[in-house]
Amino acid sequence: MKKIYKKPKLSLVGAGPGDIGLVTINCLQTLRSADVILYDKLANTDLLDFASWESEKIYVGKSPGNHCMKQSAINELIVKKALACGHVARLKGGDPFIFGRGYEEMVAAKAAGIEVEVVPGVSSSIGLAGLKQIPLTARGYSESIWITTGTTQTGAISKDIYLAAKSNSTIVILMGMHRVEKIVAIFLEENKQSMPVAVIQNGSLPDEKIAIGTISTILTEVKEKKIKSPAIIIIGEVVNLNYAEQLSSSIPAGRPEDYINYQNDIFPAKF
Amino acid sequence: MKKIYKKPKLSLVGAGPGDIGLVTINCLQTLRSADVILYDKLANTDLLDFASWESEKIYVGKSPGNHCMKQSAINELIVKKALACGHVARLKGGDPFIFGRGYEEMVAAKAAGIEVEVVPGVSSSIGLAGLKQIPLTARGYSESIWITTGTTQTGAISKDIYLAAKSNSTIVILMGMHRVEKIVAIFLEENKQSMPVAVIQNGSLPDEKIAIGTISTILTEVKEKKIKSPAIIIIGEVVNLNYAEQLSSSIPAGRPEDYINYQNDIFPAKF
Repeated sequence: MKKIYKKPKLSLVGAGPGDIGLVTINCLQTLRSADVILYDKLANTDLLDFASWESEKIYVGKSPGNHCMKQSAINELIVKKALACGHVARLKGGDPFIFGRGYEEMVAAKAAGIEVEVVPGVSSSIGLAGLKQIPLTARGYSESIWITTGTTQTGAISKDIYLAAKSNSTIVILMGMHRVEKIVAIFLEENKQSMPVAVIQNGSLPDEKIAIGTISTILTEVKEKKIKSPAIIIIGEVVNLNYAEQLSSSIPAGRPEDYINYQNDIFPAKF
Repeated sequence: MKKIYKKPKLSLVGAGPGDIGLVTINCLQTLRSADVILYDKLANTDLLDFASWESEKIYVGKSPGNHCMKQSAINELIVKKALACGHVARLKGGDPFIFGRGYEEMVAAKAAGIEVEVVPGVSSSIGLAGLKQIPLTARGYSESIWITTGTTQTGAISKDIYLAAKSNSTIVILMGMHRVEKIVAIFLEENKQSMPVAVIQNGSLPDEKIAIGTISTILTEVKEKKIKSPAIIIIGEVVNLNYAEQLSSSIPAGRPEDYINYQNDIFPAKF
C-alpha cells in the first residue's frame, strides 16, 4: 500500500470530568480525525467509540499490576507517533492544562518541530461543583475560586494551600485525597473548623460518591463513605448553599426570603 | 389546540467562551429539548440554530440604547416561563456558576418549586488560556490558579485581588477591564512590575484580540490594541511560556533543553 505522508500534529484534548455529555464538539471532532489516540485513566474510554476505526488507540495510564507509564516515555511516544503516523490526540481527563502535565507534552512536541493545538475541556474543578449545584462564586458568598493540587513535584503539600486557607476564596483541591489529613490540619490552624467541605469521587459518573461535612467532620465522613482518589475537595461557605441539611445549617438554598430579596436586588447583604 | 401540561424545569446551561466547537453535548441536547431559551450577550447566538423551531427565544442581555435587564426581572421571567411553558434553558456564557449570577436564578426557581439542573460549560477563565497555549498550572511554574472578578456587588475591587497579588498563584480576572489600572497598581505595590500579563478580548471568536505585556507595560499594550470588555486578564509567569518573544524573555516554550530535561523527568527544578 502506498504510504501517504501526513503532517505531524499533536492535539491536547480535554475529555471533561467523565460523563460523555460533558465533552465538547471539538473534542469529538478531534477524536474522529486523529490517527493515534493516547488516553489514560481519567478519560472516559467510551469516547474511543467516536474515533475512527482505523486509528491506533494506546493506553498510557496505570493498570492493575503495572506501573504508571513515565511522563518522559509518554512524551517520547507522542513524538514518535506524530512523526510516523500524523495526527496524535492526547486525551486527558478534565482540561488538558489543569494539573495534567499537558505543558510538558506540548514542549516535547514543539521541540521536535510538531504543530500543537489545545482543545479545552470542562475542568472537574468547576464542572463537578456545578453538577452538585455548589455555586462556587455565589454573589455575596465568594468573590473568587482558588484551584490547587495536593500533589506537587516534590511530594510536599503546595505552599499555596496555606495562603488559600487564610483567604475568603472558595478552594478546590484536585488530587488531594492522599493529603486530606494535612489539608484539614492547615484549615484547623486558621480556626476554620466549621467551614463546609464537599469531597466528590468519580464525579458525573454512575459510581459517583460524595461526602459532605465541615473541616471538623469531613475526615469521618470520607472514611464512612469510603471515598478514595481520584476525588476533588471543595472548601467554602458555598457548599452550604446546596447541602445545608447535611450540615444542619439554617440557610438552605431556595429559602423564600432569598427569593424575595433577589426580587429587590439587595441580596445578600454580606459584602 | 389541546394544551399539554409540561413539568416546569430550569436548566442553567454553560455556552462556553464563544466558539460553538467549545460547547458540550449536554448543552446542545438541552437547547434542543427546551421550550423557552433565555440568552444574553455572552452566549453565542448561533447556538439558537440548534434549538427547536417551536421554542421561544428571548434575549435578556444589554442592547444598544437599552439598559440591561435587571437580575430580578430575569429571575421573574424564568419562573413565569417555566410555570407557563415547561422547560426553560438559561444560556449563559462560559460556565453558569462562574460569576454569572446562576445561583440567584437557581434560588428563584427553587423557591417557586421548579426543578433545577446545571449543565456545566467550559469556563473562559480556563478555556481561553488553553486556546492561547498558556499552561495555567505548568509544573514547576505554578501550583494554583486564582480566578476572581473585577466586578463585585458593591462596585469596589475584590479584596481577594490584594491577597492573590501576594501569592505565587496564576491569577485570572474576569470582568476586570474597567478596573485594570487599579489591578496594575495592586501588583506594583507588591513589586511585581516584571510579572507577565495577557489580556484576551472575545477569546475563541473571529474578532479575538490579545495584548501581551508585563505589569509595567500592559496598560500601554491594552491601549494600543484597543482592548475593551468583555476580556479576561491572566497574570503569572506561565504567560511567558508561550509569549516569551513578545516579552523579550529568554525562556521560550519548546526550547530543546526543556525537552532533554523532560526526558530525564527532572524538569523544571524551580520547586
